[in-house]
Amino acid sequence: MPNTFGHLFRITTWGESHGGGVGVVVDGCPSRIPLTEADIQVDLDRRRPGQSKIVTPRKEADTCQILSGTFEGQTLGTPISICVKNEDQRPEAYKEMETLYRPSHADYTYQAKYGIRNWQGGGRASARETIGRVAGGAVAHQVLRKFLPKLEIVAFVSQVHDLTAVVPLEKISFTEVESNIVRWPDSADAERVIALIEKVRANGDSVGGVVTCVVRNAPVGLGEPVFDKLEADLAGAMMSLPATKGFEIGSGFAGTKLKGSEHNDAFIKEGDRVRTATNRSGGVQGGISNGEDIVFRVAFKPTATIAQAQQTVSVTGEAAELKARGRHDPCVLPRAVPMVEAMTRLVLVDHWLRQRAVTID
Amino acid sequence: MPNTFGHLFRITTWGESHGGGVGVVVDGCPSRIPLTEADIQVDLDRRRPGQSKIVTPRKEADTCQILSGTFEGQTLGTPISICVKNEDQRPEAYKEMETLYRPSHADYTYQAKYGIRNWQGGGRASARETIGRVAGGAVAHQVLRKFLPKLEIVAFVSQVHDLTAVVPLEKISFTEVESNIVRWPDSADAERVIALIEKVRANGDSVGGVVTCVVRNAPVGLGEPVFDKLEADLAGAMMSLPATKGFEIGSGFAGTKLKGSEHNDAFIKEGDRVRTATNRSGGVQGGISNGEDIVFRVAFKPTATIAQAQQTVSVTGEAAELKARGRHDPCVLPRAVPMVEAMTRLVLVDHWLRQRAVTID
Amino acid sequence: MPNTFGHLFRITTWGESHGGGVGVVVDGCPSRIPLTEADIQVDLDRRRPGQSKIVTPRKEADTCQILSGTFEGQTLGTPISICVKNEDQRPEAYKEMETLYRPSHADYTYQAKYGIRNWQGGGRASARETIGRVAGGAVAHQVLRKFLPKLEIVAFVSQVHDLTAVVPLEKISFTEVESNIVRWPDSADAERVIALIEKVRANGDSVGGVVTCVVRNAPVGLGEPVFDKLEADLAGAMMSLPATKGFEIGSGFAGTKLKGSEHNDAFIKEGDRVRTATNRSGGVQGGISNGEDIVFRVAFKPTATIAQAQQTVSVTGEAAELKARGRHDPCVLPRAVPMVEAMTRLVLVDHWLRQRAVTID
Amino acid sequence: MPNTFGHLFRITTWGESHGGGVGVVVDGCPSRIPLTEADIQVDLDRRRPGQSKIVTPRKEADTCQILSGTFEGQTLGTPISICVKNEDQRPEAYKEMETLYRPSHADYTYQAKYGIRNWQGGGRASARETIGRVAGGAVAHQVLRKFLPKLEIVAFVSQVHDLTAVVPLEKISFTEVESNIVRWPDSADAERVIALIEKVRANGDSVGGVVTCVVRNAPVGLGEPVFDKLEADLAGAMMSLPATKGFEIGSGFAGTKLKGSEHNDAFIKEGDRVRTATNRSGGVQGGISNGEDIVFRVAFKPTATIAQAQQTVSVTGEAAELKARGRHDPCVLPRAVPMVEAMTRLVLVDHWLRQRAVTID
Repeated sequence: MPNTFGHLFRITTWGESHGGGVGVVVDGCPSRIPLTEADIQVDLDRRRPGQSKIVTPRKEADTCQILSGTFEGQTLGTPISICVKNEDQRPEAYKEMETLYRPSHADYTYQAKYGIRNWQGGGRASARETIGRVAGGAVAHQVLRKFLPKLEIVAFVSQVHDLTAVVPLEKISFTEVESNIVRWPDSADAERVIALIEKVRANGDSVGGVVTCVVRNAPVGLGEPVFDKLEADLAGAMMSLPATKGFEIGSGFAGTKLKGSEHNDAFIKEGDRVRTATNRSGGVQGGISNGEDIVFRVAFKPTATIAQAQQTVSVTGEAAELKARGRHDPCVLPRAVPMVEAMTRLVLVDHWLRQRAVTID
Repeated sequence: MPNTFGHLFRITTWGESHGGGVGVVVDGCPSRIPLTEADIQVDLDRRRPGQSKIVTPRKEADTCQILSGTFEGQTLGTPISICVKNEDQRPEAYKEMETLYRPSHADYTYQAKYGIRNWQGGGRASARETIGRVAGGAVAHQVLRKFLPKLEIVAFVSQVHDLTAVVPLEKISFTEVESNIVRWPDSADAERVIALIEKVRANGDSVGGVVTCVVRNAPVGLGEPVFDKLEADLAGAMMSLPATKGFEIGSGFAGTKLKGSEHNDAFIKEGDRVRTATNRSGGVQGGISNGEDIVFRVAFKPTATIAQAQQTVSVTGEAAELKARGRHDPCVLPRAVPMVEAMTRLVLVDHWLRQRAVTID
Repeated sequence: MPNTFGHLFRITTWGESHGGGVGVVVDGCPSRIPLTEADIQVDLDRRRPGQSKIVTPRKEADTCQILSGTFEGQTLGTPISICVKNEDQRPEAYKEMETLYRPSHADYTYQAKYGIRNWQGGGRASARETIGRVAGGAVAHQVLRKFLPKLEIVAFVSQVHDLTAVVPLEKISFTEVESNIVRWPDSADAERVIALIEKVRANGDSVGGVVTCVVRNAPVGLGEPVFDKLEADLAGAMMSLPATKGFEIGSGFAGTKLKGSEHNDAFIKEGDRVRTATNRSGGVQGGISNGEDIVFRVAFKPTATIAQAQQTVSVTGEAAELKARGRHDPCVLPRAVPMVEAMTRLVLVDHWLRQRAVTID
Repeated sequence: MPNTFGHLFRITTWGESHGGGVGVVVDGCPSRIPLTEADIQVDLDRRRPGQSKIVTPRKEADTCQILSGTFEGQTLGTPISICVKNEDQRPEAYKEMETLYRPSHADYTYQAKYGIRNWQGGGRASARETIGRVAGGAVAHQVLRKFLPKLEIVAFVSQVHDLTAVVPLEKISFTEVESNIVRWPDSADAERVIALIEKVRANGDSVGGVVTCVVRNAPVGLGEPVFDKLEADLAGAMMSLPATKGFEIGSGFAGTKLKGSEHNDAFIKEGDRVRTATNRSGGVQGGISNGEDIVFRVAFKPTATIAQAQQTVSVTGEAAELKARGRHDPCVLPRAVPMVEAMTRLVLVDHWLRQRAVTID
């Protein structure tokens, strides 16, 4: 459904970049899960603008408030309403958007679909929309922490423009990723990426890249075999994030160049566990998690808003030139990392609850 | 939901490869749409085994029967139940599967999730499951034909292993694609692909590849801006098909290596229409179709079933060697084309109905 | 959704009275539940026409076939497709319906809504539609038997026209109800009801009545507190059955004439259990089951099809007189009992699975 | 779903009586519908406590704030978030509830289901939960006003304890109903009802009653024929309101005492329209509206909170006596009227959008 995600653990997000605020209602959360605003704020802070020199300098604290669903620091099992007020609104910075469509933005399609749009900022197509997702993902995190304490989700920037990280997957840690402002898996290597982003920004341009996500110690058996395959739900979740253009799991597009005899993951026994010798499946077989690391990659296009002059048309159809003002990210990747994590958590907690419902003994 | 796809135009598929049959219930189809079994059979025939020398030689006519929802050749607005009986069942060919997990198949994950599986064939993980999708897609086709007669969906095999088609997108036609058994966009070039597949099969191996799909003349305004972005629903739909490992739309992963100034699609005016000078967006902006061609690519891994010996474990945990018998596709790509088309139609018809519900004037 | 019922345990029914058949796809059933056609047939036989002298003499065996979702007598966790062929079709008996709207039937509203209808019988508005529900309810029964073996659901005819059963609720047993053809809770008293129905039929007329349902030993905690209150879902389920006009739970409409001091159910302790001294709540408080008997009543109008002449209009708008032929029930109540039970089971199994998903420890 | 109602036009409500506030997110509302806070406040004022001498004296202004989804007084097509802060909280008045279960309240079942509850007031089971519904219903009202300007929904109190209103249905007007504090259809007759309620309150007791609702000029064709019959969705909606015990449509339970020949609604032609001579169907046939008045009745039990001493048990299982303090309604009926209207609007607007989606020409 348009603004609701999930089947048993559901979030409904709301809010435009300009207006009263943005937020989320989380429904279906089990009761007696520890939850305070601090649990949510930590992820919002990783998402918020102004957190480093390579992201947009917009100044928004993005302070969240829990309005319902908790009592004395625990969830009640009732809907959890979380609200973040809009603060640093500068509609005047968007004045041109009233009459011009920004290239590769949603201005034109919103106008065509709805016959109206909130041109003061990106409206619902703004990256602010993801605040609700990240807040909802933080609630999911609390549930997963309680029931699947070994589960670990690490997302990181694995590629920016033509720069690629070369750290083996098993060596990548959340701590290392969070220790540099790019969220690059190797802090020692992050400076060249930072330099690239700063140079691009200085040129009034932008760059894209790839976020990789690895899920460790996922339970076996998550995912429904046909339309709600785990990879299908992950793909849908990731491709619903702003600026995404591609998704691949396990061997992905590169795997199409292997033969079956090269690609298949042989089964082996490791103690009591059935495991695979390789992991080209990416942790999912037949739509169901097999206990290996779930590994997927998400392509983000270069930020559409750039400071260079661009050709466009006006709402009345005249050719025009647009030169964005506003304050924007030269590269969305660092802030996309907590978004990818949040959506991953939302998919996993939902499938985990669904699996609990029907598991015998 | 596990076996239901769509919000207003919904299909619910059922059936295992071995058992009474497979089928689909289509709910939410408008009334008074012309529909006969012939309209469905044409697509089932493009999906069925035994259609050419490069697919599995299983002999199944896959003849469909409409059990409800039509009257005198028109839809009633009530659920349309379509059934295809299973015919060429050879459970003995799968005898080994009772005790062995086939590598990169769903045998192990089904067993782990459900504690039981129909080992006589692939069960619900069999490609036969897609019969219901293709039949449902054929019903969607009838609706789209009636209401959006200019809409055209052409899917084709654009890559097999390391062979890539080099036909410009705008020159690709359904007729040309259907005129060769690979569903390659250039028949004159198809022989080298056929030769590759035949060689691979002779070696008891398999290959993967890419299906590209282009949607022409889609209406502007399809797609919901947040979780049900058009590309998100397409990604989820495609990644729910068996053997898929990746999805990309427009510039996709390659677009991550462009700068914003290179990637953005400038708006231009063409007659009355707002158009884009380029189409790196792939026909979707902010999750909503913009009237340009919708272009996406789906990665299919090499078929997991191969005739070569493979290492695996048994259901009781012993190391074992497996050498598949059965009859399988050395390359699923040609038969995947109608599946991709069907899922595309299902996504589009659903979004089109959703858009109709709320469109004013 | 139109033809799908349930959230986790879902049935999708299909089929018209005239056409290939009727059926149901059950999705979300846990795996490894014992299930054979005999488990389903027993309830279909209680629903089928021709079972006694006081129901319609249509001769249909309503033999069911399981087409998918089971293996060696157990459920697979995949969709269970159940089909019943139509046999005793006599479209000629309905010839007049092609041009005339039957009073208090769905002929006119179907025509107005869809612009088409299958006039050969009641189409989707026929009581045959409930076959899918009863079959789905039988699958739910198997799940409930396994996980909640003490749960007991007894529905019975408590009123026919002006005759009312006077058996105390706690004395009513399934065996007694099934031992007479009215499904009256006191067989010794059933003859007067049978005589009434036979007299009404002889006059070409029909009668309505009330089915009461009691659920014993339901777990505490079923039901969601706001929109999916247990009584709301039961009400929606019952009012979706053909010919229903009313629903009440516990004290119902009569309770509106009590004062709070007379109506409230005092809490008492009985061993380890919190119980209520009375049960005007009908087993549900705040939308959630409290462990007391769940008791509700469903009003069924007199069968619309009668043999007496009636005033109506034709599809072209002329005044006309209609005298139904066809073969119909003078009283739907006896056959409604298994329908009420089936819908009750579907509601309970769904809420029970939902509760399992989120229950801690 | 637990806290979400509707299929295309969906509301998700949140909030407890004690906590930050209560609210609703409305999703699926068409764009360009006029909407301001005043449009919502008018209905909230009809629902709020303290509005007259016969309702609870709690002092809450229930002032709403629209946080998203509108721009310059019109809807954007994006989620509309509406928030009402909690003001007059007196947790100390509920101190006893921490340890005692109130008879016929949800205290015990919430505790049993969730293992936790917000005992400071009724939590999610408080009548404050309906604020979100009424606000959502007000948005639905704006949509219906625009697209179905002739549609009229009038709910009114038709029975309080043993007093019954005797105004013919066709004479009942919104203006008359709103002109007295009981919302009785005949103001001249309202004093005896007011006197009854005041007397009951003076005795520390409470009374129940019936709200009747009539929908005039509904379009023909609303409702889906099987599980989403219009009466099924209305029944589920009404029975989801707090304190409801019964629902009936058209002839209801009384109709079970008529014969088919007495009950059937003969079709007649009136100008261009097909109409029925009588309306025992209550405006719905086969689950679909037929254009006649939709008429239904909802039973509300006497308020559970009374000032008289009652027997109960404590959370630790000891027998106890409870004497409620707090401030409560001696009769919920007057405030239930706008709740019934809101739920009716939500059901109708959703079915109307659904019907638009599939209607040809």
